[in-house]
Amino acid sequence: MRPYELSLSAAADAIRARRLSPVELADSVLERVEQVDPHLRAYVTVTAERARRAAREAENDIAAGRYRGPLHGIPMGLKDVIDVAGEATSAGSRVRADHRAEADSTVAARLSAAGAVLVGKTHTHEFAYGLTTPQTNNAWDTGRVAGGSSGGSSVAVAAGTATFTLGTDTGGSIRVPAALNGVVGFKPTYGLVPRHGVTSLSWSLDHVGPITRTVEDAALVLAALAGHDPRDPASLTAPGTEYRPVAGADLTGLRVGVPRTYFFDHVDAEVEAAVRRAIDRLRALGAHLVDVEIPMTRYIRATQWGLMVPEATAYHETSLRTVPELYQADVRILLEAGELMPAGDYLRAQRARTLMRREWARLLRDVDLVAAPTVPATAVKAGQETITWADGTVEGVSDAYVRLSAPANITGLPSLSVPVGHDAAGLPIGMQLLGRPLGEKVLLRVGHAYEQSQPARQLARAA
Amino acid sequence: MRPYELSLSAAADAIRARRLSPVELADSVLERVEQVDPHLRAYVTVTAERARRAAREAENDIAAGRYRGPLHGIPMGLKDVIDVAGEATSAGSRVRADHRAEADSTVAARLSAAGAVLVGKTHTHEFAYGLTTPQTNNAWDTGRVAGGSSGGSSVAVAAGTATFTLGTDTGGSIRVPAALNGVVGFKPTYGLVPRHGVTSLSWSLDHVGPITRTVEDAALVLAALAGHDPRDPASLTAPGTEYRPVAGADLTGLRVGVPRTYFFDHVDAEVEAAVRRAIDRLRALGAHLVDVEIPMTRYIRATQWGLMVPEATAYHETSLRTVPELYQADVRILLEAGELMPAGDYLRAQRARTLMRREWARLLRDVDLVAAPTVPATAVKAGQETITWADGTVEGVSDAYVRLSAPANITGLPSLSVPVGHDAAGLPIGMQLLGRPLGEKVLLRVGHAYEQSQPARQLARAA
Repeated sequence: MRPYELSLSAAADAIRARRLSPVELADSVLERVEQVDPHLRAYVTVTAERARRAAREAENDIAAGRYRGPLHGIPMGLKDVIDVAGEATSAGSRVRADHRAEADSTVAARLSAAGAVLVGKTHTHEFAYGLTTPQTNNAWDTGRVAGGSSGGSSVAVAAGTATFTLGTDTGGSIRVPAALNGVVGFKPTYGLVPRHGVTSLSWSLDHVGPITRTVEDAALVLAALAGHDPRDPASLTAPGTEYRPVAGADLTGLRVGVPRTYFFDHVDAEVEAAVRRAIDRLRALGAHLVDVEIPMTRYIRATQWGLMVPEATAYHETSLRTVPELYQADVRILLEAGELMPAGDYLRAQRARTLMRREWARLLRDVDLVAAPTVPATAVKAGQETITWADGTVEGVSDAYVRLSAPANITGLPSLSVPVGHDAAGLPIGMQLLGRPLGEKVLLRVGHAYEQSQPARQLARAA
Repeated sequence: MRPYELSLSAAADAIRARRLSPVELADSVLERVEQVDPHLRAYVTVTAERARRAAREAENDIAAGRYRGPLHGIPMGLKDVIDVAGEATSAGSRVRADHRAEADSTVAARLSAAGAVLVGKTHTHEFAYGLTTPQTNNAWDTGRVAGGSSGGSSVAVAAGTATFTLGTDTGGSIRVPAALNGVVGFKPTYGLVPRHGVTSLSWSLDHVGPITRTVEDAALVLAALAGHDPRDPASLTAPGTEYRPVAGADLTGLRVGVPRTYFFDHVDAEVEAAVRRAIDRLRALGAHLVDVEIPMTRYIRATQWGLMVPEATAYHETSLRTVPELYQADVRILLEAGELMPAGDYLRAQRARTLMRREWARLLRDVDLVAAPTVPATAVKAGQETITWADGTVEGVSDAYVRLSAPANITGLPSLSVPVGHDAAGLPIGMQLLGRPLGEKVLLRVGHAYEQSQPARQLARAA
């Protein structure tokens, strides 16, 4: 196995044991970038010099006995809405053409302190405001969408051009592209990972989280990211936790909620079959399956959009007036729509969220987590605008991709997307595990147990 | 002194000592109602039979040794937005012509359990949406406004037609009429007193609180009202406190903030002089005066209206469509304006509130409370629409009356209005004391100390 193919934990073990040098790993990843990124376009900027310098420093530090932990010397990509001092943060937009970050975002600073090595900034849908990443191709089929908005980050992990990455998730933007590219994506509890220095889309729905090759890797990255920062007003003061899942795959006693409604409506048959197989696997590992009724499903879409649209518009208020022509048409239309939204729609969405949180809390008293598809369909062809369901219903691709992710954004509940196989065309399928507030550890344990029970996954085929 | 003239604590002492019977007290108050309410019109409904029955029950219970505490046998009025089982809740509106409450509001149930005796429901500005009470006359000059929206409740206490009352306060509606009628009005910390069964004006700004003749009386009523009720989503789970202020007027060591900005701008000279005299009195009692800068004053008005208007409109959505003609013109215009407010204005108001709360919290680290005028002018003549300030500025009466109250609604901080004298025309002047979240006890202590240092107040002259 070449270094770029290693999972984070495997690479970390090899580095700690001095079987692998950070320089060797960085070189392998950078070579892989040169090889496949021209076809995939996961990166907007590759910081090769910076990476080689950081890798050498890591090598020296480790040689001198100053090993900092599992992220030390590990190559990573950061979605290009995350500030890194001295680098541009384009947010995928011409509006940000001249932007250069003066300081690290909290997450960049924490990863840097942990010794991770920046390979580059990854492509995003403009200002993360969309469920695709038009600049980037799917890692398994370059004729298909990467999903979004953290498309670049997901493709990089899937293709071996970063050992891990960070994404952001306002309506599914970590989990959707993770599922569509066959990698792990984790949207933690709202407020667990500080967003200071991360370009805002919708502050009451925005989350930062890891995209990795394994569930264990997601735990390692989350451990470095989590923790209070007063500069994010929503940041929680929750105590730190050991996230790394314990070995052993016994799930006896665990109650897994299986949605009777909503999460299996208008879902592709192959996706449904793969997710139900994965849920059966959880049962085989000892979990007790419980049918659950998803609350307030009629309100999910209106609540997600009712919160996101006006908050996004408020953030862009000035640029929208001064440089409207610099936005892409799809994003500009959404931002302008936000200007017309009445206050009543926004406050009704806020009230619906309050009720939805309460109902989900009630649901999660009966089960430890809920298992469901992450996305109702695999990656569509680039340019495809709608999906036609078996009953003849036609749905916009973005609507379909956001539909099953939105509940975790509205409620702030943690949601972990885990790969659960491929459809007949070879495209990856994801299952999401939704848990209680600050129930990250349970999700990681279950995801890890599932993963341990399956054959090891390979890097993306097309790459 | 006739029974209707007694303060709550004096009446309670007399009842407990069996020097006064609840029946005698109720009869005295009801006779007073017959005598003066035709001129003052504080009451929309007088529940005389109910009151006499409750007074007899109280008398029997107390005679049998079942004394329930200081509210037992005490005549009270409730603002007509507060549900009492079996009575109408008109909210001052023709929209509610056929409304009859099926169950007690939380506060009515708690007062009833404490043995208080309902004299009647008091007039309010329609749906509490205004700073006057057009149906009611000022207790000190029937040609002047009562203030609002808890005008009836304030006039009743000032005139001796209730020993205490409840009001509600969304932008000053307890404190403004309390100040204009020379009684004590207390808006407690947001969430301390549950609002279940109280007609909503603006849920994020609404408060319920007591109107009384003395600060000590306010403490006695608050003790019966405070405490968690899950049926109000904003209800706090704060632990109970003994609110009754201790005897003794020494304020040594207490830091009283005196606003350098905002609270003394565009304030009538006689009002300012009376409030500054009262603040000097606090210093004479041992308090240390500290000049303070009021934060974000430019945003207070826009934030108050930006929150109140859309929330009020959302509450009235259905009636506004079906029976718009039943609303008074002033209220209907405000409700219709709410339909046109963009979501951006509402969310900017919410963000401003977050910042304002933080800044006031900072301010209240340096001082224990802030002392300021409650209202910048005394009661205006009925029908007067504007106030002209010394510098020629013209201000709408409602704008002027809400201006100094709004900060405590936006921030949710407790605010106690205490009478501090009269202007040359004999009209009452109020001082408000603003404290820390759940700092009720400090405000009551300071208000009580001030009150003890002054000659006892009389009932309203005109009554």
